Amino acid sequence: MRIVEIREHSIPISRHADPALPSGGLTTSAVALLTDVVRDGRPVVGYGFASMGRYAQGGLIRERFAPRLLRARDADLVSPDGRNIDPFRAWTLMMAGEKRGGHGERCVAVGTLDMALWDAAAKIAGLPLARLLADRLGRQPEPAVRVYAGGGYYYPRDDTSRLAEELQRMLRLGYTHAKIKIGSAPVAQDLRRLEAALKVMPGPEHLAVDAMNAYGVEAALSAASALAPYGLWWFEDVCAPLDFQTQSAVAAAYPGRLAAGEALFSADEARLLDLYGGLRRQRDVLVFDPVHCYGLTGFLEIVDVLEARGWPRTSFWPHGGHLFALHVASALGLGGAEVNPFCFAPFGGLHDDGRVQQGRAAPPDTPGIGWERKANAWALFTDLTP
Amino acid sequence: MRIVEIREHSIPISRHADPALPSGGLTTSAVALLTDVVRDGRPVVGYGFASMGRYAQGGLIRERFAPRLLRARDADLVSPDGRNIDPFRAWTLMMAGEKRGGHGERCVAVGTLDMALWDAAAKIAGLPLARLLADRLGRQPEPAVRVYAGGGYYYPRDDTSRLAEELQRMLRLGYTHAKIKIGSAPVAQDLRRLEAALKVMPGPEHLAVDAMNAYGVEAALSAASALAPYGLWWFEDVCAPLDFQTQSAVAAAYPGRLAAGEALFSADEARLLDLYGGLRRQRDVLVFDPVHCYGLTGFLEIVDVLEARGWPRTSFWPHGGHLFALHVASALGLGGAEVNPFCFAPFGGLHDDGRVQQGRAAPPDTPGIGWERKANAWALFTDLTP
Repeated sequence: MRIVEIREHSIPISRHADPALPSGGLTTSAVALLTDVVRDGRPVVGYGFASMGRYAQGGLIRERFAPRLLRARDADLVSPDGRNIDPFRAWTLMMAGEKRGGHGERCVAVGTLDMALWDAAAKIAGLPLARLLADRLGRQPEPAVRVYAGGGYYYPRDDTSRLAEELQRMLRLGYTHAKIKIGSAPVAQDLRRLEAALKVMPGPEHLAVDAMNAYGVEAALSAASALAPYGLWWFEDVCAPLDFQTQSAVAAAYPGRLAAGEALFSADEARLLDLYGGLRRQRDVLVFDPVHCYGLTGFLEIVDVLEARGWPRTSFWPHGGHLFALHVASALGLGGAEVNPFCFAPFGGLHDDGRVQQGRAAPPDTPGIGWERKANAWALFTDLTP
Repeated sequence: MRIVEIREHSIPISRHADPALPSGGLTTSAVALLTDVVRDGRPVVGYGFASMGRYAQGGLIRERFAPRLLRARDADLVSPDGRNIDPFRAWTLMMAGEKRGGHGERCVAVGTLDMALWDAAAKIAGLPLARLLADRLGRQPEPAVRVYAGGGYYYPRDDTSRLAEELQRMLRLGYTHAKIKIGSAPVAQDLRRLEAALKVMPGPEHLAVDAMNAYGVEAALSAASALAPYGLWWFEDVCAPLDFQTQSAVAAAYPGRLAAGEALFSADEARLLDLYGGLRRQRDVLVFDPVHCYGLTGFLEIVDVLEARGWPRTSFWPHGGHLFALHVASALGLGGAEVNPFCFAPFGGLHDDGRVQQGRAAPPDTPGIGWERKANAWALFTDLTP
């Protein structure tokens, strides 16, 4: 049982349904991990990608991390019973020789390969990923995961009317909750887009806002004070990810729910957020990305660290907005998962036959992650394989 | 005035003078940055490398950061008078679109190119880098920088006798201070190597120890208690770089000088170290690496942030042990610089005609960094260029 080849493509992705709109030159990595295990007459291939927002990682994958997997001896890669690839053991091989600190980029590269390893392992086991992972962790997967629709990026033209239209489409798909962006415009303009959004949504507790780490301390406190009366679902990524002084000042001033963690990538950083960020363990939301945080092994370490410090695991609503995060939320019993129904194609959103019902969705019940049931992603992944 | 081509080679480097000894598979990146500026009848080429300890960054350099420099318009790359490449402006181009947080790998890639930009700019100006940089900052360069010899890694055989021999060679070269590694062996064994080292050195205040981020809180406190009676020069990288609880517990218990920062790569992290690490501003030592911290622009931001918080700039003794760090220490008036006289060839150590006198050394007075006067590095760099 070996990994015989790993292929990577770096591809552009967009925050907008219309990829012609400018999107900051974002890219991501798609990988195919070819094994020598045969199922249904064909070698099993695991597929993964680098989630959204932190660039493709082709160089680190090809030069540093894929070679460690390809060099692995069978005995170091498989489960003790020899019947499957063990992604936890594979993760340890990938991280061999890595020094402490420096939690950027490599965490994304490792997470990308980790996703493909889990896809392969679940296919070898003939199980949907949520079931395989829940079994490994001694849990029952949640059949229908709470989800919300992420999106609401600034449009270069007709911003408020297009934002309202985007939210209407989300509601028509069955989403009950949504998240939009703020922080890149003056507060008065952001309040206009917020009010346009609230006219569409069933109520303010159905709408979250995400400032994308934009605010310094004064702007953050001013935004918090302007937002507080609305009673929103949550207020996310208020300030720079390591600016715990601003984070805690806002936590002291803002009575509503805060969300943080999307741009923190390690258990060490998660611990610092809890120690110094002033977040409230029974109220606030944690949006660590299970890909960007060194994959599932790193994400589970974050869950463990914060659970031990008093956070309920329902506080976790992973960033990403894709099928992998949906499986993870189901298997781990997290609060829910983001879904990006329109943006970040071909990876955002549910599988083609996936449905949102009363704000919940089930991951695909196909073996693996289920990319095979998402035509646009599947077309891209099959480009990578013979 | 344009950058016309950027070439990168990833090369193995070793902690030991004898590269046959195992060294954890370390690599680094060497880059050549070809400009269209002609001096002495030849196009100016800037050379840089990725310092020691955090792996080569060929992928990020080729795929993300070099293209941004190569695409740059002249007007965005040069100083207002049009007479030189402006590495500060080039840095801003490299970081365009980069998100906050995630301070690993990309900081090394950017720092590598940044070193080559400074080498090119100093050659275009016809000045040694220390002079060019001091001029830009309105300072006088320090002609003779305090230095110490870094090394003292564990030898797989005959460790204590070979360590003693290595330190004797350092003293014969004119070094008065040295740093050796601890933390990868039980404390009793580390104390034996410490005592072997102290027999060679002029006194305990001439010897620093570096635990390479190895200790958890109990081991750190136990090591601190064992080391305290020796009165060493400093005790470096006690614990994981973001483990500020352990760092501050040790700072409260250990009366001697501590050093930290080698595995922190951003001003955001430096601020956290100061806020939560318990370090003592008039006593302790900061070993941020001016390459790994997003190059000189990032390093200067760290110096500014910490100076504003009450740290004297003589607290900074940059990690790296190479000519670039020596220029930076000279230009900025830092406490001193590490030099790696034997390890990390071909980049460690002074230029071939460089001399240490009474524990001080001058950077080469050639235009640029002066790689031309270090035969082993020069051979490698010229491999990169036609």
